[in-house]
Amino acid sequence: MTNRFLGEDFLLTNDTGKALFAKCQDLPIIDYHCHLAPEQIADDGNFANIVEVWLGGRTETGFYGDHYKWRLMRTNGVPEDLITGDAPDEAKFAAFADTMEKAAGNPVHLWTHLELRRIFGITDELTPATASSIFGRTNEMLATPEFSRRNLLRRANVEQVCTTDDPLDDLHWHKQLTSEKSFRVMPAFRPDKALNIERPGFGEWLNQLEQVVGAGLTSFPDVVDALAARVDYFHERGSRLSDHGVDSLTFVPATPAQLDAILKAGRAGQPLTPDEVMAYRTALLIELAHIYAGRGWTMQLHFHATRNLNSALFQAMGVDVGIDAMTDEPLAASLVQFLDAVAQGGALPRLIVYSLNPNDWMPISSIIGCFQGAMQQGLTLGNAWWFNDTRSGIRLQLTTTAEQSLLGNFVGMTTDSRSFLSYPRHEYFRRILCDLVGEWSQRGEITDDLNRLAELVGSIAYFNAKKFFSPTTQPKMAEKGAVST
Amino acid sequence: MTNRFLGEDFLLTNDTGKALFAKCQDLPIIDYHCHLAPEQIADDGNFANIVEVWLGGRTETGFYGDHYKWRLMRTNGVPEDLITGDAPDEAKFAAFADTMEKAAGNPVHLWTHLELRRIFGITDELTPATASSIFGRTNEMLATPEFSRRNLLRRANVEQVCTTDDPLDDLHWHKQLTSEKSFRVMPAFRPDKALNIERPGFGEWLNQLEQVVGAGLTSFPDVVDALAARVDYFHERGSRLSDHGVDSLTFVPATPAQLDAILKAGRAGQPLTPDEVMAYRTALLIELAHIYAGRGWTMQLHFHATRNLNSALFQAMGVDVGIDAMTDEPLAASLVQFLDAVAQGGALPRLIVYSLNPNDWMPISSIIGCFQGAMQQGLTLGNAWWFNDTRSGIRLQLTTTAEQSLLGNFVGMTTDSRSFLSYPRHEYFRRILCDLVGEWSQRGEITDDLNRLAELVGSIAYFNAKKFFSPTTQPKMAEKGAVST
Amino acid sequence: MTNRFLGEDFLLTNDTGKALFAKCQDLPIIDYHCHLAPEQIADDGNFANIVEVWLGGRTETGFYGDHYKWRLMRTNGVPEDLITGDAPDEAKFAAFADTMEKAAGNPVHLWTHLELRRIFGITDELTPATASSIFGRTNEMLATPEFSRRNLLRRANVEQVCTTDDPLDDLHWHKQLTSEKSFRVMPAFRPDKALNIERPGFGEWLNQLEQVVGAGLTSFPDVVDALAARVDYFHERGSRLSDHGVDSLTFVPATPAQLDAILKAGRAGQPLTPDEVMAYRTALLIELAHIYAGRGWTMQLHFHATRNLNSALFQAMGVDVGIDAMTDEPLAASLVQFLDAVAQGGALPRLIVYSLNPNDWMPISSIIGCFQGAMQQGLTLGNAWWFNDTRSGIRLQLTTTAEQSLLGNFVGMTTDSRSFLSYPRHEYFRRILCDLVGEWSQRGEITDDLNRLAELVGSIAYFNAKKFFSPTTQPKMAEKGAVST
Repeated sequence: MTNRFLGEDFLLTNDTGKALFAKCQDLPIIDYHCHLAPEQIADDGNFANIVEVWLGGRTETGFYGDHYKWRLMRTNGVPEDLITGDAPDEAKFAAFADTMEKAAGNPVHLWTHLELRRIFGITDELTPATASSIFGRTNEMLATPEFSRRNLLRRANVEQVCTTDDPLDDLHWHKQLTSEKSFRVMPAFRPDKALNIERPGFGEWLNQLEQVVGAGLTSFPDVVDALAARVDYFHERGSRLSDHGVDSLTFVPATPAQLDAILKAGRAGQPLTPDEVMAYRTALLIELAHIYAGRGWTMQLHFHATRNLNSALFQAMGVDVGIDAMTDEPLAASLVQFLDAVAQGGALPRLIVYSLNPNDWMPISSIIGCFQGAMQQGLTLGNAWWFNDTRSGIRLQLTTTAEQSLLGNFVGMTTDSRSFLSYPRHEYFRRILCDLVGEWSQRGEITDDLNRLAELVGSIAYFNAKKFFSPTTQPKMAEKGAVST
Repeated sequence: MTNRFLGEDFLLTNDTGKALFAKCQDLPIIDYHCHLAPEQIADDGNFANIVEVWLGGRTETGFYGDHYKWRLMRTNGVPEDLITGDAPDEAKFAAFADTMEKAAGNPVHLWTHLELRRIFGITDELTPATASSIFGRTNEMLATPEFSRRNLLRRANVEQVCTTDDPLDDLHWHKQLTSEKSFRVMPAFRPDKALNIERPGFGEWLNQLEQVVGAGLTSFPDVVDALAARVDYFHERGSRLSDHGVDSLTFVPATPAQLDAILKAGRAGQPLTPDEVMAYRTALLIELAHIYAGRGWTMQLHFHATRNLNSALFQAMGVDVGIDAMTDEPLAASLVQFLDAVAQGGALPRLIVYSLNPNDWMPISSIIGCFQGAMQQGLTLGNAWWFNDTRSGIRLQLTTTAEQSLLGNFVGMTTDSRSFLSYPRHEYFRRILCDLVGEWSQRGEITDDLNRLAELVGSIAYFNAKKFFSPTTQPKMAEKGAVST
Repeated sequence: MTNRFLGEDFLLTNDTGKALFAKCQDLPIIDYHCHLAPEQIADDGNFANIVEVWLGGRTETGFYGDHYKWRLMRTNGVPEDLITGDAPDEAKFAAFADTMEKAAGNPVHLWTHLELRRIFGITDELTPATASSIFGRTNEMLATPEFSRRNLLRRANVEQVCTTDDPLDDLHWHKQLTSEKSFRVMPAFRPDKALNIERPGFGEWLNQLEQVVGAGLTSFPDVVDALAARVDYFHERGSRLSDHGVDSLTFVPATPAQLDAILKAGRAGQPLTPDEVMAYRTALLIELAHIYAGRGWTMQLHFHATRNLNSALFQAMGVDVGIDAMTDEPLAASLVQFLDAVAQGGALPRLIVYSLNPNDWMPISSIIGCFQGAMQQGLTLGNAWWFNDTRSGIRLQLTTTAEQSLLGNFVGMTTDSRSFLSYPRHEYFRRILCDLVGEWSQRGEITDDLNRLAELVGSIAYFNAKKFFSPTTQPKMAEKGAVST
């Protein structure tokens, strides 16, 4: 087996894998966790140039762009001016090309070249020698109607994307996008600001929530009710998923009176002890889980990220600028307590449990297996995410899911991306999936019936996500609580 | 290399591995850690049907069966009635077949089909379409004398199994089984109830121990002496191994007076602090280690399981029902203190240290390497266990053992199983072992002399376990303390 | 693909890898972290025999030798007399040969045979049958001038080694070695004794530091200044690297007054709390980082070793005798605080962060990526070290570096060895590197341009270490602070 760089069979090392990829490569894409901006989809404009879409830049409110690439450029010693600063775009692009010369084996290197091929039809490698030519050719194409934001999604065969939205959002962009017939833009409910009681701005956010729901929020149950009302609002607009960035969780129980007192103090911006913060977070996550369960929603929990670690860069640039990492504290005991508390107090929703630290994947898999039973694949280990979105990470997540759970029910890939060009990552995932399943088959560990294998990879690439996350296959409001999948 | 599903060379991807498997596949089986019920072996009856043997059921005292399969069925959304409940057996079997359709890559899926082939001669895949036919054919066979419990062991080429027995057990079933000439049923000493001072029933268990040894147990040394007497009792009946489910260990030293006080309080059912529980457990494990060392026994320590996590299922069903998982707390520091305390206070016994969390295997390997010296392979990393009994887990354990210790001394596979049908897992292990060793040889990392490689895999598959665990090759009571292997 | 044991293409499983190894195998060796004794290099004598060089022995001041081998011999039940004791050398060698019979898959087994081939031209396997002959033949060769210590380095194509030196060292051996033209012996600054304030001997060590720098050390800043003076002393003698065995790090901030008080107490041998020890260590590491940054040095941090675990052996034999292991406490939070404190208080030096526990490599990689930017590859995950110096470990470290950082900037292999025979480990590393990069290329994940791939592996095998660590390519003192690489 010898492949050319990104050649026809790249990442495919066995005949079964090649045959499987041929059968699933054309399936549509459901990207159920990403960070595309709905206003950008609605707007349907064109990008200024390849630097805007690949590296981003600055707006009045802060920096935006692909912080994966920023980290690599900083690692290569590129000055910030050439990354997120005021240097000319072509100079930034050249600095990025320089960095790619050192990046063999990094997924950003592979994705970059895959995007050049699949989106722009450019097969040259990005090097200092080719940078100027590639800069010119991509920019020419990006200026054409075929490269408008929606056309980028259409051409990538996207059927559905789930954005990440604050509970306060009125979802008017999503409403506007209901007229889009090529793909569906579904909101996902991300109430991090309701959970992060210790952060500046919590009180102000609650004030806004009061406005939005039209009711005073004086007690913990008031907040729960307000969030439930927002879930209903989202549900009516097609949402079926929520998402939570629970960087750390220590299970701390509390009484209703304590929760009310913590809420009051947090809202007033008074300092809270770590235990108070965790007690509030614990209680609210449990309530939210019950809210989602009652509506047939999926709850996503993203554990073990830690953010904004470099104080100087954080002060200069703010959040999401490439200074986040994973943590390594024990997680298992608190996760057990949380899941058991949800199960004891009501029903578990469909849950996807992600951890940014891959060392957690075996403990998490063993724990979620203890709380199954209410529905098909009620709990799932989340896909290989962020730092794990690599061949190693994807293979580990798939192998862990297969060995510890039921791979045939897995909902597959998400990009977790902010970029309109990142959809070839689904091809990347599908190749790794088909190669791995092909290996198992060729070793005689699983069936050698190609039709049944194609059904397996097809489910993971597309059909399971469609079944579990599409509003058309999910219960209507009237049926809420009546989950049967 | 392309294999059919479970074809002749399945799991074997290189010629050396194939040649090695041919040389070790017919070696007898020594299963030195399992949970077969000795009364069931003694009874030598037939199973009612394939559901009883594969999925189990309920007796007056609780549920029994294969909780690995139960977890997967729950994961597929099968209602409990069709798993452990009152549904008809054929319906349960169909629900299990449905689940297997989603389970490609899960070891239960592979084992299920391997058992169908090796035990029943059935090469059909278990699917909803074949379920009824397979249900009928297996049940027909299970009703014949060839499928009595002992014949299942004989036909699997089992030479020795080690059951798991409470110190109070009089081992009368084992005595009765001494007349069995095809295989040996050896008791293994598992004093978890003596160690779990914080659990309900501890006082009652001590009362029974008093009865059995015919002496009052008023002090901590009394308990130690009583357990030593039971070890001698087991030794005389052929036992040479002990086993401990030490889910968590924090090393806490205590004075004799403190231990007496903790024992008194625990026996009376008074609440104990976590430190008191750990002080008692620490001290008793050290004493037991010395008792085993004095008799040339092997001590097994199973770390980092956590049990009965789903409160609702636990209350409804009790223990061993598929709601256990692994923990992720640091282990290294306490393990070091424990091993050093045993070594300082006397002799270390032969020790096998297992952890359910594979992240622990490197730290454990590095630690046990510091306490070697008293005998050949005095301390060993335990085999890939429970959630790790997968191709990934077995390869990781073997590679870790080879790279960090002496693979040539490794004692190999145990099923840890409750099932009379699970012996093909030794074939599974041997294939993975031969494939891995073959890979190393074909990469030129180890010898290419097939005879020497065959000796290596033969040692691991059979001969080392025979040397280290067989009562015939172990010291007699008269020689106790004189360990030389 | 079938290789003979250590045959021409061993460890190389694909054509690209073979071609790459052909291109990098003859590059010189820069071993930037090892424990060769500079006086032994200066002396340039011959070893007494193969046992002295492979297994070591005892001097008036303690034991020396290869504790990797000692651990394996103990694991095989070899009595200490035949390992580090007074048994005849040939008997020790026979016991080692016995142990090697069990050691297939262990890197010591592979290295042993690779050293026999590359250094002595002996292709026999070391077994009990060949031990006597190999003992005779190697000893004959070791007695010849071609096998003097310096000739061993010359024949291994060593261009530079970095020894590990105490700040008190006057480096007179290094001075003497400046006349050696075949290779450079560079000192590396290892101030562990300045950091380990809780250890016996700390006060005495400070007294000596006072003597050496000719100034009283009454305050914490005095100690910092004295160490800075020693860094300058080392710098003038060619040193460009420091090294720290930071077994554990808990970030504890302290005021200047507190640091002075802790220093005073530590110097007087008074007991310190764990927090005091960590406050002192935290502050001194931050100061040292700034000192190194100001001089364009590289700082190496070795985390998560734990030492001298077996009390009986430690009391009998002392340090570095094979009774060290890895720890498993969380590291991420303290590492973040440390790096951020260094960055906030001044500049980060070039940093190589090692952990002995491979579970830490992903968290570390994610964290160091947050602090890049000041220079090319300012922070790097250290190479696979000690227990990780295996095919598994090296592949994991390279894959992690590629996927999480820029592999093209990686500085490659160090032996971390005390042995003059250990240089074939660089061949071992290069084969694993070429094989892995070849795999990626043949899967189509990276370029198939052999020249560019050869540049990649060449950089890692040699050129990056030359660029980052050679005094000739590093800033002169006059330019200190002006790092630009």
